[in-house]
Amino acid sequence: MTDVAKKRRVASQITAEDVARVLGVSQSTISRAFTVSASIAEETKERVLKTATALGYRPNVIARSLITRRTSIVAVVIENLADPFYPLVLDALTQRIQSCGCQTLLFVPAAGQDVEDILPMLLQYQVDAIVITSATLSSTMARTCALRETPVVLFNRYVPGLDIHAVSCDNEAGGRLVAEFLIKTGHVQPAYVSGLPDATTNLDRERGFVSRLDELGVTSWLVEEGGSYGHEAGYAAAKRLVARRARPDAIFFASDVMAFGGIEALREIGLRVPEDISVLGFDDVPMAAWPSNALTTIRQPVKEMADEAIALVGLGSPGSAPAEPTTRFISGTLVERTSTIDRKRSAVGRRPKTRIARH
Amino acid sequence: MTDVAKKRRVASQITAEDVARVLGVSQSTISRAFTVSASIAEETKERVLKTATALGYRPNVIARSLITRRTSIVAVVIENLADPFYPLVLDALTQRIQSCGCQTLLFVPAAGQDVEDILPMLLQYQVDAIVITSATLSSTMARTCALRETPVVLFNRYVPGLDIHAVSCDNEAGGRLVAEFLIKTGHVQPAYVSGLPDATTNLDRERGFVSRLDELGVTSWLVEEGGSYGHEAGYAAAKRLVARRARPDAIFFASDVMAFGGIEALREIGLRVPEDISVLGFDDVPMAAWPSNALTTIRQPVKEMADEAIALVGLGSPGSAPAEPTTRFISGTLVERTSTIDRKRSAVGRRPKTRIARH
Repeated sequence: MTDVAKKRRVASQITAEDVARVLGVSQSTISRAFTVSASIAEETKERVLKTATALGYRPNVIARSLITRRTSIVAVVIENLADPFYPLVLDALTQRIQSCGCQTLLFVPAAGQDVEDILPMLLQYQVDAIVITSATLSSTMARTCALRETPVVLFNRYVPGLDIHAVSCDNEAGGRLVAEFLIKTGHVQPAYVSGLPDATTNLDRERGFVSRLDELGVTSWLVEEGGSYGHEAGYAAAKRLVARRARPDAIFFASDVMAFGGIEALREIGLRVPEDISVLGFDDVPMAAWPSNALTTIRQPVKEMADEAIALVGLGSPGSAPAEPTTRFISGTLVERTSTIDRKRSAVGRRPKTRIARH
Repeated sequence: MTDVAKKRRVASQITAEDVARVLGVSQSTISRAFTVSASIAEETKERVLKTATALGYRPNVIARSLITRRTSIVAVVIENLADPFYPLVLDALTQRIQSCGCQTLLFVPAAGQDVEDILPMLLQYQVDAIVITSATLSSTMARTCALRETPVVLFNRYVPGLDIHAVSCDNEAGGRLVAEFLIKTGHVQPAYVSGLPDATTNLDRERGFVSRLDELGVTSWLVEEGGSYGHEAGYAAAKRLVARRARPDAIFFASDVMAFGGIEALREIGLRVPEDISVLGFDDVPMAAWPSNALTTIRQPVKEMADEAIALVGLGSPGSAPAEPTTRFISGTLVERTSTIDRKRSAVGRRPKTRIARH
């Protein structure tokens, strides 16, 4: 045994019973003091933690997990932390996981690494559940997880026909909201700039947008492929779009970050946003509210999505998790800022009173 | 025993030996296939993972940890995921931790929650090391970790006099770089907008900036308190700063996000960046390269900082970790974009040729 192992063994010989005896409280009080979300008076908790530290006591979740078969660890797979939407997602998921007395085991795949390669490694950690964002899952791997009875939920993705939980913003409804808003505000030549070509997020946003335009009697709209959700993609697509013969009077980008790139491109060309072209995004990342963007966008209900995902894998309110694979869609809301204009009320070319949305 | 526990027990009865026998390979090949960073042919690895999945075998890191006293889990505490600098940090740390065959256990303190309250909970997970970003640590808690022989490193922070590892960008040298750059490019009235008042990051940037100005014979500079590192703080501070009798010709903000807020404020007032006022930040977050910001800034060497932090806690290259508490400062670099101007070369008020820096 190494010195480290020896020291650790000594520390672990102090039990919850010892701490309880010293303080004259029950063992369950000691347990509650070490559980993030447990109901316990702040003063009592501090007293327990202080004494436990002084005595060298700390509960061993890992050893306990071999008996309870629960590690209180939830794996979160997240691919794209550089996109400001995903830090929001990770924050919401982690806060929710912590409020259930669990911790987040984070996995960020390396460039080009497949989620399928990662799962066997995550399963080694005997995690209680797995949340997968910004990636899909094959049916083989879904079966592997099912076999192990490790609940899995896809976040911001779903795979039609796959027996697995999924939570997503209602992207189709979001696309429909944008179409309605643009027509109501007098736009006649709308355009969509797409994101990742195969992602359900992208496909649903486009489907909702064009189907609602069609229902509203609009006969002409433009679609330009972005190819990804990034700033560069939005920038390049906007340049291609305005070079077309039929110039749009509004562009709906598949993500906020693409819209920021698009706004840059339009300004470089000398087009005014929103006077010449209205711009909309999707996500409502923090910088959408910055005055230089002031982006009208669909706000994804990230907190509600995180709560729902954690409920689907059976944490938080035990027994409430559905037995059958369930896909939940949660509606976003349209946040109006000044990157769009009401063309019915404003003579084209006249600058409207600027409304600055700060938060 | 619950049904879940039963199923798990059945799956765990399949051993590495079984998988090795089926495939006709050694047990160490099986082990390498389940280790992220291990040297193994891609084809062999896939064959092992496929067969292991089919047989229902997976190694149990958790059970093994009771023998090895290593969980292969590194805790990362991160407070401010909404600031785009911290997702960069988390990405770099997690990639490095994974390349050592370990996983990141993430902890995001709730608003107002103290890191001191979190550590006892993290220690329950028997983590191999702890990385703490954007928070400090009391000497009591540092002693608790030392007692448990759990290596701790502060990231982007250090506490003078505290016996604990720390890795930080050389913020003082960064401030000096900015001062030299501004004087070399003909600025005569520079200003600093500070961030979090007590943070070493902020204090060191300011100290480097003003001490170098002083050395260069500059006798007058302005300092305006930001109070935080946020967009709103930069926006408000810039407005206060230009309302002063002596208007600055360059503003160095303590963070990029503050600089973005400052640029917004200056534009609203009708001041041109950089013709009227040069603007600089610190961090080099992705949006610093977006054309509408094109921010001259100090790039923090995030990847090198992550590598160093992981080395200090003894992962990656075992035996290389220093025994004594060590603080490492790593130099940043100045990235010049078009939010600054060379006032010696440009007649004031004439717009220079725009250099767009895209990445």
